[in-house]
Amino acid sequence: MAIHLGANQYGKAESRVVRIYRDSPRHQIRDLNVSSALRGHFEDAHTTGDQSEVLPTDTQKNTAFAFAKEKGVGAIEDYALTLGGHFIDSAAAAEGARVEVEEYTWERIPVDGEGHDHSFVRAGSGVRTTVVNVEGRGDERRAYVVSGIRDLVVLKSTGSEFHGFLKDKYTTLPETNDRILATSLVARWRYDHTEVDWDKSYDEIKTLLLEQFAKIHSLALQQTLYGMGEAVLERHPEVAEIKFSAPNKHHFLVDLSPFGLENPNEVFIAADRPYGLIEATVVRDDASDAGSAWHAVPGFV
Amino acid sequence: MAIHLGANQYGKAESRVVRIYRDSPRHQIRDLNVSSALRGHFEDAHTTGDQSEVLPTDTQKNTAFAFAKEKGVGAIEDYALTLGGHFIDSAAAAEGARVEVEEYTWERIPVDGEGHDHSFVRAGSGVRTTVVNVEGRGDERRAYVVSGIRDLVVLKSTGSEFHGFLKDKYTTLPETNDRILATSLVARWRYDHTEVDWDKSYDEIKTLLLEQFAKIHSLALQQTLYGMGEAVLERHPEVAEIKFSAPNKHHFLVDLSPFGLENPNEVFIAADRPYGLIEATVVRDDASDAGSAWHAVPGFV
Amino acid sequence: MAIHLGANQYGKAESRVVRIYRDSPRHQIRDLNVSSALRGHFEDAHTTGDQSEVLPTDTQKNTAFAFAKEKGVGAIEDYALTLGGHFIDSAAAAEGARVEVEEYTWERIPVDGEGHDHSFVRAGSGVRTTVVNVEGRGDERRAYVVSGIRDLVVLKSTGSEFHGFLKDKYTTLPETNDRILATSLVARWRYDHTEVDWDKSYDEIKTLLLEQFAKIHSLALQQTLYGMGEAVLERHPEVAEIKFSAPNKHHFLVDLSPFGLENPNEVFIAADRPYGLIEATVVRDDASDAGSAWHAVPGFV
Amino acid sequence: MAIHLGANQYGKAESRVVRIYRDSPRHQIRDLNVSSALRGHFEDAHTTGDQSEVLPTDTQKNTAFAFAKEKGVGAIEDYALTLGGHFIDSAAAAEGARVEVEEYTWERIPVDGEGHDHSFVRAGSGVRTTVVNVEGRGDERRAYVVSGIRDLVVLKSTGSEFHGFLKDKYTTLPETNDRILATSLVARWRYDHTEVDWDKSYDEIKTLLLEQFAKIHSLALQQTLYGMGEAVLERHPEVAEIKFSAPNKHHFLVDLSPFGLENPNEVFIAADRPYGLIEATVVRDDASDAGSAWHAVPGFV
Repeated sequence: MAIHLGANQYGKAESRVVRIYRDSPRHQIRDLNVSSALRGHFEDAHTTGDQSEVLPTDTQKNTAFAFAKEKGVGAIEDYALTLGGHFIDSAAAAEGARVEVEEYTWERIPVDGEGHDHSFVRAGSGVRTTVVNVEGRGDERRAYVVSGIRDLVVLKSTGSEFHGFLKDKYTTLPETNDRILATSLVARWRYDHTEVDWDKSYDEIKTLLLEQFAKIHSLALQQTLYGMGEAVLERHPEVAEIKFSAPNKHHFLVDLSPFGLENPNEVFIAADRPYGLIEATVVRDDASDAGSAWHAVPGFV
Repeated sequence: MAIHLGANQYGKAESRVVRIYRDSPRHQIRDLNVSSALRGHFEDAHTTGDQSEVLPTDTQKNTAFAFAKEKGVGAIEDYALTLGGHFIDSAAAAEGARVEVEEYTWERIPVDGEGHDHSFVRAGSGVRTTVVNVEGRGDERRAYVVSGIRDLVVLKSTGSEFHGFLKDKYTTLPETNDRILATSLVARWRYDHTEVDWDKSYDEIKTLLLEQFAKIHSLALQQTLYGMGEAVLERHPEVAEIKFSAPNKHHFLVDLSPFGLENPNEVFIAADRPYGLIEATVVRDDASDAGSAWHAVPGFV
Repeated sequence: MAIHLGANQYGKAESRVVRIYRDSPRHQIRDLNVSSALRGHFEDAHTTGDQSEVLPTDTQKNTAFAFAKEKGVGAIEDYALTLGGHFIDSAAAAEGARVEVEEYTWERIPVDGEGHDHSFVRAGSGVRTTVVNVEGRGDERRAYVVSGIRDLVVLKSTGSEFHGFLKDKYTTLPETNDRILATSLVARWRYDHTEVDWDKSYDEIKTLLLEQFAKIHSLALQQTLYGMGEAVLERHPEVAEIKFSAPNKHHFLVDLSPFGLENPNEVFIAADRPYGLIEATVVRDDASDAGSAWHAVPGFV
Repeated sequence: MAIHLGANQYGKAESRVVRIYRDSPRHQIRDLNVSSALRGHFEDAHTTGDQSEVLPTDTQKNTAFAFAKEKGVGAIEDYALTLGGHFIDSAAAAEGARVEVEEYTWERIPVDGEGHDHSFVRAGSGVRTTVVNVEGRGDERRAYVVSGIRDLVVLKSTGSEFHGFLKDKYTTLPETNDRILATSLVARWRYDHTEVDWDKSYDEIKTLLLEQFAKIHSLALQQTLYGMGEAVLERHPEVAEIKFSAPNKHHFLVDLSPFGLENPNEVFIAADRPYGLIEATVVRDDASDAGSAWHAVPGFV
């Protein structure tokens, strides 16, 4: 029987790197979850157990922490690009390096009307993410950046309809022109290049996604997502495409008629499972080639 | 062999009641997780299976939803008191009713500098909680309210020491006068009575807890918690006692010396397990009797 | 204002202690999750930050690992009793020590009809637990042991009825004489003393609980639990009382009539929330005093 | 600006379908988690909100339950193929249908040495999975089946080495010729065709994976996985390729020397994060084309 090693990848997942900047009494904090992986010609490691080409996952972890001091942590995209490039250069057998970073946001605790110098409270409203793929060496170096936000939980208490859908013999859903629309949004956008002001771009896109969710009168979650994506592409030429994965977190109207009560869209039960799951991509017609940008990005079509 | 039924309780847990107020175009939302339980003389239900004294958990759930319309949802404490009183009155065998409510906070999505009328984003920074116990009927009615907050994640990047502790042969921890202090705080405070402006009291106590966490120079998490509790009792005469359960979420300084790097409290690894767990109560000397206030409140001594 | 420190407890939670016995090529594994806590006169630690009476949580963790070698890990009850006694003796200010241990079960991987010497697969069917409380010194030493099992997921596809219950204006639940009964059982039993063959007692009680769940024709989850508890007390004189916490994991019959299909108890949807939650205690009339046995055992009335 | 809809998919996720077979007193249970999704030409739904081509996710859910009665639930692969084919035929705009099913295993509770007729306990040792993709209509119909197992938690207490790896300036990991190797395995194998005895194939592959994990003397998790995959391909001609995703669940040797204790691989701490993450594919050289088989399978390269 003839077999071979196919796609492969190995690395260290979820190193929780916390970097405090304390150059002044007013500390800064960057709180990260870092995962890295190498892929490529690692046949020997798999078939004979020879590890001579394998940069250990432990070393990858060490590097994530060391770079937090040595190179610093600014925008997570820059940090991930630096790490990814280093790993490619360190492991000759690697064809690609993937670095995924999540960043948790902290706000200063207000004390006497001012944010405190070194005391923080975790903010809600989504986790910032980036996935960076780096390939090639020297002049052949290519880098892809997909940034995003996950767990951005939003809800509209009206301004959402759903009707006119296809029906078959298993369809029982009533049409509605007023329902709750809620989701825990995951959005990831691919940057066209790496000459980007990452923090500014992220802040503006997050704000824009929220605004559009609010403004769009929804005829379906698909149409809401498309409209959100369209707005991002219109205003952010640095973005080549954007993907959404959005659970439709159902809020069912509760039947209060057995108790002699009307329920004009006032009392709902928030359901756990099952849930609708809508995935959509909005792409610029002249988008650059995606290359390995979406390599191993889970939960997206 | 002679045996008997001991402590018992039954009810419906985690009904996800969402109440929208839409009397004007500017909607209000109250998003709750409601659990109720009855306890008392339910021997027959257990020993013979006779359910004639048992108000079904399904009915308890129905009531939670119906009351959201019929009585409305204001402060969760009022809602829980109303439900608890009703359950006691509905089930003659019950000696006590316990209603626990969690509330998730939503903020209006900012659009053009204004909060949107009917679009919301979930806020972080803790979940508001209440546990209400109601006992007795008619003039014998007693009600106990324990409110709180959970999952309030806070961190100090300095201003925290830990030294001078007891040592034995298994002690290896170095003393420190500068460390990260972080916790995911759970606080529950018992109200002395029920004549309280619940929303105002909650808002002020939450603000105060955050402020004190920021202000107190910490010599140990115990001392921080005590100081936070002391401040609450000082300024809130309506509070009889306050309990804390606070995991010490360790942030260990990473040894970067193998890489020729210094690490003056700049790079940390956030650890998952094990974690310290500090539980403490601060009580007013002349606190009212707790009665069943802490009945079945998990995770507190 | 006069305030004081009330109930308090501190310790290290969830140390994941794995002990391999490799005295012969046929290894044994004990895989534990260990939490310990001390309570007592720790006023200074809270009010002034003086830690001189505080045995650090880090030391508690070290001891849990050291004892796994020094004293070995046999039955988790013995291990917890040894640790708890040691902690009381090490910290003069402590009035009580609480040690909670969970044990994950591993089975040998079958190879050629035999269990392998050193390769294991995690077994399902519940996690073994114990909570030990130790108080007093020297001749005053008292120890309480509450052992149990959690997450024992069981289901009956028939042999379960629910009818004859109390009704009020919010009752809509139809009566049934055939439904699915399913729960994720948590049971904890208090031992009357510590002269027990722990492993044997645990194995037999687990087997008995399963058997009784199977055998009892259920008129309500309460009655099933009571019957299970009764059987344990009948056959295990070493057990003083047993407590259950059992979510009623609802399986709702799906209405297939819109599709022209009958559904004679064949197709169900397993629901997440809300769920019934039944808590019950079965006690021996002449049970010994519980003392601090149930100290800080969460999720039980 | 010119933009367009890219990859998209929508459906209902995590319908918890429980099917009881009660044709005889000896019941059978199939306990499933079903997710379905359609993809294709759904431009109008996204750009104008026109839902006339959209078969609602609610209908997909209804169908999953109805088919459990109408077509029955045998092997999850057959059930998923039937559902997927139906969805393609019901929605003219769809180019592909994806059905993912997880199955939870129940064992009969032993009573008097026999498995009980209608009482079951959830088994551990992994969740059976399948992902089916169906495309085309009539003679163009193609179907791809990727089955697998997830959360198969296994551990070797010896027989695992790791040395000879690549080193750079950030490498500190000592080499070892004896360590614990543990993982929570996810394996997915692609079937070459659909003429398969699914249950038999699954049972044998699961057994084989466990056996190989036990037998292989490990020089690295990569080499263990490759060997496991090789064995599957050797004995199962119906399998075209197999992919693994395996966290290296680190068990670190605890340093007991400060307490004057040796630790010859006896006492370990099981760590949570970070963890190694090894992903590998073993492919038959003459494997059939994968087509859309791996469409939206998360967590695999």
